[in-house]
Amino acid sequence: MSELNSKQWFTEIFSPSGSAFSLRIEQKLAEVQSPFQHIEMYQTTDFGNLMVIDGVIMLSSRDNFLYHEMLSHPVLFTHPAPKNVVIIGGGDCGTLREVLKHPDIERVTQIDIDEQVTRMAERFFPELCASNNDPRATLLFADGIQYMRETPAGSVDVIIVDSTDPIGPGEGLFNRAFYQSCLAALKPGGILVQQSESPLIHMQLLNDMRQAMKDAGFADLQTLQFPQMVYPSGWWTCTLARKDQAIDGFRRDAAANPAFETVYYNAEVHQASMALPNFMRQQLAAQ
Amino acid sequence: MSELNSKQWFTEIFSPSGSAFSLRIEQKLAEVQSPFQHIEMYQTTDFGNLMVIDGVIMLSSRDNFLYHEMLSHPVLFTHPAPKNVVIIGGGDCGTLREVLKHPDIERVTQIDIDEQVTRMAERFFPELCASNNDPRATLLFADGIQYMRETPAGSVDVIIVDSTDPIGPGEGLFNRAFYQSCLAALKPGGILVQQSESPLIHMQLLNDMRQAMKDAGFADLQTLQFPQMVYPSGWWTCTLARKDQAIDGFRRDAAANPAFETVYYNAEVHQASMALPNFMRQQLAAQ
Repeated sequence: MSELNSKQWFTEIFSPSGSAFSLRIEQKLAEVQSPFQHIEMYQTTDFGNLMVIDGVIMLSSRDNFLYHEMLSHPVLFTHPAPKNVVIIGGGDCGTLREVLKHPDIERVTQIDIDEQVTRMAERFFPELCASNNDPRATLLFADGIQYMRETPAGSVDVIIVDSTDPIGPGEGLFNRAFYQSCLAALKPGGILVQQSESPLIHMQLLNDMRQAMKDAGFADLQTLQFPQMVYPSGWWTCTLARKDQAIDGFRRDAAANPAFETVYYNAEVHQASMALPNFMRQQLAAQ
Repeated sequence: MSELNSKQWFTEIFSPSGSAFSLRIEQKLAEVQSPFQHIEMYQTTDFGNLMVIDGVIMLSSRDNFLYHEMLSHPVLFTHPAPKNVVIIGGGDCGTLREVLKHPDIERVTQIDIDEQVTRMAERFFPELCASNNDPRATLLFADGIQYMRETPAGSVDVIIVDSTDPIGPGEGLFNRAFYQSCLAALKPGGILVQQSESPLIHMQLLNDMRQAMKDAGFADLQTLQFPQMVYPSGWWTCTLARKDQAIDGFRRDAAANPAFETVYYNAEVHQASMALPNFMRQQLAAQ
């Protein structure tokens, strides 16, 4: 049985599924205790830089494209004409960068509670922060729950909730009250998307999220799945929730001929992300 | 940083990608040194039983359905009318069970070099061995390379190579000579499918496999992707190679109305597994 020397490996134990994932590290690059959470940065041997918050892996240089692209492009190509986007969380700015690749986007407001996450990203993931000075972007460091409560009704096309897990600062982003604020802030036909954890080990949480979205009054939901190596199980989801209308496909021609480059996303991958395995269909149908 | 006590966790280090995956264990159930490899069985806290060969995780009770279904049903619904199937490797019998779910299959011959793998599976994965006494099934314990060399030309519809990684006993199953034997054994339009490792960390190996299949004379290739938590990166592939003909879709109506149950596979999931991300398209195209 192999031993992991804790000086050479960063290990995240995910106790509810009795599993753990480790990356080999060269060195710790930085560490800060913000008012909200404990942030660590590592240089790994094979995955570039690694950000860890409260002991949980947030992203690596090598594989963050999967998550950031899937949290951005499917929702933006599902909405018929998104102009005004709000990102809740997302302090590493990788989602912001993907959203700003869409030339028709007029305004993106990112609200992360913890400025230190963005300061760390600027130092250790500069490629993700390359669009932070785009004139269409506004970066706020504030409480996203309060921000959504105070957003003028019917003013936003797309809300992207790019949060940590529903423990700690992210907890209030997974309940009916928050979703009601989001629903009110969206224009008719507007869409919320949120990371919704692993199909293999978090189906109860996914079901609870979807139920809270329904209870808040969203008209239609769609859960998409994609690989994400550094998160527990290596398999992840996001869930779209639409106001007033059904989620009826996506702008396939636009997705197939984007004005920008992606590493993972394309129109076929978008379609594929909607195909749910039998066990997910059954559990979502039983809701 | 978390510490993994090696008495409570089984850890597999995958050194080429500087990553490791661990499952929490209750106890070691069995251990045997066969003439070919070292086989260990563990009881885990959350993933049922776990088989490890030469330190590498082979399968767990909880997630083997992903791999076994994807190695079986896509190729069988791609072939127009498979009757005679050969499985090389596959000693845990999970692939055999999936193949035998297809009522029109007349004969399945499984050739694993190591009888101890099947003996262990019978004890610790009895559900995977439930079809071993099906009159259509023949289990041989012999060298799959030699078996394919001696198989009468044009006698097989589908060959499933359910092997370990290309190190140790599995090494000879990833080269041109083996693929040439398989090609000769297949009927016209026959299809080989083989597990082909991770898109995120084994693209060179995948490209080399595909090149060897082309060099052997296969007419068309198709790589499918799917999640597989207990393998490195949690994201895996298999590659189909067809004799004489293009791989032109699959029998969608049959796949959508199967005579049996699956946990992961369905017709939409099959279609989705063919959608390759941009970075894979580019690397496969550059071949």
